[in-house]
Amino acid sequence: METEETIRTRRSVHQYSDEPLDDETLTELFDRTRRAPSSFNLQPWEFLVVRDDDNLAELQEIANGQEHVTDAAAVVVVLGNLDPAAHAAEVFTDWAEKGYLPNQEEADGLTQHVESWREQDTSENRLWTAKSASLAAMTMMTAAWDMGIASCPMGGFDGDALTETYGTDGYEPVMLVALGYPAEDADDLEREQKSRRSVEEITHFESFEA
Amino acid sequence: METEETIRTRRSVHQYSDEPLDDETLTELFDRTRRAPSSFNLQPWEFLVVRDDDNLAELQEIANGQEHVTDAAAVVVVLGNLDPAAHAAEVFTDWAEKGYLPNQEEADGLTQHVESWREQDTSENRLWTAKSASLAAMTMMTAAWDMGIASCPMGGFDGDALTETYGTDGYEPVMLVALGYPAEDADDLEREQKSRRSVEEITHFESFEA
Repeated sequence: METEETIRTRRSVHQYSDEPLDDETLTELFDRTRRAPSSFNLQPWEFLVVRDDDNLAELQEIANGQEHVTDAAAVVVVLGNLDPAAHAAEVFTDWAEKGYLPNQEEADGLTQHVESWREQDTSENRLWTAKSASLAAMTMMTAAWDMGIASCPMGGFDGDALTETYGTDGYEPVMLVALGYPAEDADDLEREQKSRRSVEEITHFESFEA
Repeated sequence: METEETIRTRRSVHQYSDEPLDDETLTELFDRTRRAPSSFNLQPWEFLVVRDDDNLAELQEIANGQEHVTDAAAVVVVLGNLDPAAHAAEVFTDWAEKGYLPNQEEADGLTQHVESWREQDTSENRLWTAKSASLAAMTMMTAAWDMGIASCPMGGFDGDALTETYGTDGYEPVMLVALGYPAEDADDLEREQKSRRSVEEITHFESFEA
């Protein structure tokens, strides 16, 4: 699908067909998702894919009982690594090898710089990882729509319960994204699209007035 | 451009041509950007567009002197409203009108629910708004690449200085995004793309092991 059409027609869908999302389809989806940009290309994202019915039922409880969690073919838990330097050495070595940095010494210096962020407040590192993980989540939803797969991002869930259930200490549970081929008669597809604030309202030139 | 090609070929570019970004082009860009999903469709985003040379020079200081800030045709300051309920009433009334909610009473209840988030820790609302604003930022960068416009997101800037300079109290400065038509000989376009972590590494099925 043309990019403009993908962006303009994508919408959150809450009702899905019974068609599963197979491994091959998900591999293709994440092969696109991983192209997202991130802070210093550090790619702090991890994607926990839940398709098993029992696991989806458990996840539904964590997500305040939202119905479409169990209706979805898969729910992706988008996680953000709270250690900014987790992949720093390999990322900056890649930069040096490809000419983005003049030499390995500069790469090592950058790695040390990013390692110093470990001393930041946890709230800063949560914010840091949530931004990059959200860029990837949006890329995933855009890619999915292009592949005929509907999505619905969810922010309403018990983060502590999720961390405990899946043992994801050290990772921010950024959002859940339900995925599935849309049901033919999905309500969301039959209704008028939800409104968006106008371009005039959201853009400000050179100075800001709320 | 086909969506798959847009996602697979997009890359951050740091060198731009002298061609400006005119109002019409930016209007088209933000008309696509505003289609992004957000938490409860609350669209907490604002986009401060800086094109004036003096203002870009000022922004460059705030952004740790990064060279491409003044080379860009525009830098967009992506802001996230720290008041989750800023647009709640209009958003939920729209839902009631279009059948996403059974009636206006439910809309009013949802508005009250979101208003209660004002009592949350500031750190929670910063995280909340950063996620939705980042979904919009990614949509903007994808739409831009499709329109032939290169971008480069930046997280390295002095948020407090930015807030003071632009008087954006009450808004989280989520990220800066440099925009411009790429220079023909842009280094980033000539080098091999920066590596990405593999699908195998970033995906986890049913359970999580770091």
